[in-house]
Amino acid sequence: MSTHFIHEILNPKSVAIYGANNSGASLACIQLMNMIISRYDGKVYPIHLKLDSVMGFKAYKNITDVPETPDLVVIVLPPRIVPEIFRECGEKGVKRIILISGGFREQIGDRNNTLTEEICEIADKYGIRFIGPNCLGVFNNWVDPENDSKAFNISIWEKIKRNKFSIVSQSGTLSSHIYFDPENLDLGLGKSISVGNEANIDIVDSLEYYKDDDQTEVIGLYIEEVKQGKKFLELAKEITPKKPIVAIYGGGSEAGNRALTSHTGSIGGNAKMYEAVFKESGIIQTDKVQEFLDITQVLVRGILPKGNRLGIITNSGGPGAMLANNAEKNGLVVPEFSDALQEKLKSMLPPIASFKNPVDVAFDMNLPYFYITLPELLMKSGEVDVLVQYGVVGFQDVMDHYLKNEHIASHAEFKKQNFEKSAELNKMLIQPTIENSYKYSVPIFHISPQNFNSFWSKKLRENGAFLFRLWDRPISCIKKLCEYAEFRRKQT
Amino acid sequence: MSTHFIHEILNPKSVAIYGANNSGASLACIQLMNMIISRYDGKVYPIHLKLDSVMGFKAYKNITDVPETPDLVVIVLPPRIVPEIFRECGEKGVKRIILISGGFREQIGDRNNTLTEEICEIADKYGIRFIGPNCLGVFNNWVDPENDSKAFNISIWEKIKRNKFSIVSQSGTLSSHIYFDPENLDLGLGKSISVGNEANIDIVDSLEYYKDDDQTEVIGLYIEEVKQGKKFLELAKEITPKKPIVAIYGGGSEAGNRALTSHTGSIGGNAKMYEAVFKESGIIQTDKVQEFLDITQVLVRGILPKGNRLGIITNSGGPGAMLANNAEKNGLVVPEFSDALQEKLKSMLPPIASFKNPVDVAFDMNLPYFYITLPELLMKSGEVDVLVQYGVVGFQDVMDHYLKNEHIASHAEFKKQNFEKSAELNKMLIQPTIENSYKYSVPIFHISPQNFNSFWSKKLRENGAFLFRLWDRPISCIKKLCEYAEFRRKQT
Repeated sequence: MSTHFIHEILNPKSVAIYGANNSGASLACIQLMNMIISRYDGKVYPIHLKLDSVMGFKAYKNITDVPETPDLVVIVLPPRIVPEIFRECGEKGVKRIILISGGFREQIGDRNNTLTEEICEIADKYGIRFIGPNCLGVFNNWVDPENDSKAFNISIWEKIKRNKFSIVSQSGTLSSHIYFDPENLDLGLGKSISVGNEANIDIVDSLEYYKDDDQTEVIGLYIEEVKQGKKFLELAKEITPKKPIVAIYGGGSEAGNRALTSHTGSIGGNAKMYEAVFKESGIIQTDKVQEFLDITQVLVRGILPKGNRLGIITNSGGPGAMLANNAEKNGLVVPEFSDALQEKLKSMLPPIASFKNPVDVAFDMNLPYFYITLPELLMKSGEVDVLVQYGVVGFQDVMDHYLKNEHIASHAEFKKQNFEKSAELNKMLIQPTIENSYKYSVPIFHISPQNFNSFWSKKLRENGAFLFRLWDRPISCIKKLCEYAEFRRKQT
Repeated sequence: MSTHFIHEILNPKSVAIYGANNSGASLACIQLMNMIISRYDGKVYPIHLKLDSVMGFKAYKNITDVPETPDLVVIVLPPRIVPEIFRECGEKGVKRIILISGGFREQIGDRNNTLTEEICEIADKYGIRFIGPNCLGVFNNWVDPENDSKAFNISIWEKIKRNKFSIVSQSGTLSSHIYFDPENLDLGLGKSISVGNEANIDIVDSLEYYKDDDQTEVIGLYIEEVKQGKKFLELAKEITPKKPIVAIYGGGSEAGNRALTSHTGSIGGNAKMYEAVFKESGIIQTDKVQEFLDITQVLVRGILPKGNRLGIITNSGGPGAMLANNAEKNGLVVPEFSDALQEKLKSMLPPIASFKNPVDVAFDMNLPYFYITLPELLMKSGEVDVLVQYGVVGFQDVMDHYLKNEHIASHAEFKKQNFEKSAELNKMLIQPTIENSYKYSVPIFHISPQNFNSFWSKKLRENGAFLFRLWDRPISCIKKLCEYAEFRRKQT
């Protein structure tokens, strides 16, 4: 188990919180609700000058009155009173603070950072390490390794599926709000740290923690400014041969840098310099948040392709052609299959199908062939390193869609039992392919040809398929996956 | 009203259909169900050798027995018997056919197109114009201009919101299946033609029709091969100064061309040549289907920006910085606002906010300011041509989210009435801004910071906001919109 001080912040046994009340309408209330919905089972001590209880917890007038020294203190208060609170906490023996409040160096009134300097001095005096100011807290899905229904969460507004993807971000939106829309992807998350203005704890500290953390296998960064540049580069070089890092750099352009100055007070920087640092240290870079989510969620599955040859299986010519074009534009290879492999495919598919790559099964609705046999044949062939599949829908879904329509009702004369069987089939269709994906080390990506939340799409997702809406996003994701896999091969 | 022969195909008073039965499990059945769900109220004549009724319609043994000459015949039958059906239809006096069946020139067994040539000769002999083979039918949301609840639809599996966006596509997926997922966007559609192999009617015929069609204001193309190249270029040049055309070219790469050969039998082509043709004729090009949907839906609103200066309004520094960066990378300008405009913004916003562009309101939750006053101020200023807004959520949504959580219930002590007011506010928040967008000719794009299908997000969408998931997609869309607007300015 890690002994890093950030590990302590993510696993407190007791938490005092300043700023929460019973109105619901404040950031502190929301953070307290985040703790509640994630079933935090440590001690909670709201501090409030007037209230006797806050959201069902006994409240205390000040930290001195709290019956123990809490492992962590969370502060959401106006900046001017923060130094006083820091002093009280120091006297109480508090060693870890998350300072969520904004309005420090990024605020016009504190250009010289006098307030920030004051709290830093107090922290140093009492041996306090703190996150913030101007941050959105932390999230830890691993408080109980045996039980993934609990989290320590003062950041995200709902429980997320647990995996070993960890974020450290200079933007609270990137560390937390990207999880507002759970339908966007089959998102998973392990840990998330919003470092804000980094007055004390910064990205480098967080990387140091994630480097040796068994609960972290993929790291996501959002960076506006790296304060310990040399240490960052050294650390990144140590980490990337073992754990992929995916980074967004938020500065660079004139307007981008203008945005940063008012955001975290960062002076911004040169995009080319950051690109060079990322490249040198093996960091995967992206400037799109969707790609950040896609690629990190793909990497966390841990299947690295052995090369950059893409196999495409589809039942539709248009998406097949567009996938092939965009793959080649992005430097992937879409090889024409060997005669032997084409002959095997011919023996399985109707004559109207295409066998060269893309494989186009046309109107063939044989689901087990499409979802199990064809992918397995291609994975085993050794002729492709990655697979992408756009395609055939569960026929039950199609029929259900029509049968629920009020106008169809009077016209429908179908024998319903015809389709029940394929609904049964759905359950076992995708798992063998996921297993084969691990077995042959060939990642496979699926694209939904129908409603992303339909019965069939949900079945694919629940059973571990990486399902995309439409067919644009997989290619750039595959490209970056292949580049990282090549980087890893060169390391050994 | 158009007298073009394609207009007749899209507005038939009577339709005979070959291939449908009562199993539900065939493409012909699905197309007949599409007609039913779209409330087609003309005559329907299923042709079936054995059945007396098909899906509730009286069936006929052959076309000769049908009591009138139908305006349109739809055929989904094996290729080998199609010539015979064409002859029967010709004898009956049928002039318009949609031949959905695949397996002609794209099929290995008919490399020399003998079957295609045979049906073309029969069609010429009888004066038949036909769409297909190897297509997915047509869709017309304008059968009754006074009533948008009806459509003539043998293509798409549900009713779509009506607008003046029309598609012609050499891929059935691009003309129809992209509408499988209605949640993807607030999609609208006017007409759609899947031309398939273009044995008789092609993209150029369809463009000729759309050119003078009052029900078409924006045209979407998916192209694998243009058969009448010179005519295409001439037509496109006539159309684009009045109606934007957005095109995807599906060929170009080695693998892409391989896909086309087996798809529609097209020989593919040179991507650079198509790019040059698109550029010369003012066609907006994209290689992403999501962008195809985004840009066409934006264009159909008809607001062309006067320049390429982008204003950004946000409550979050990270997305603001990324939007600014990506805008500049894409050739847009994100101007620093004039002192006068900054002073006005300062008088409206808390001191922690940023006023230069991006405008970052930080934690300010004043919804009418955010959604009405700020956009209006920027639109009126003359300092920006396009606006993008990432931001503040309806607080009622946030509270509803927490209050429905089982663990919150015992802790919640909120005064609920605090938030009812903002729920009321939601209703009037977006419409004045949409009106201003038209008034000042400044398009505005919104990005949802929370669940895309939440109460608040839905309110924005229902009231006409163009709402994106995350903040990656608007920029490339805005870039293409600005480029087209510049093209239009040069025409006058």
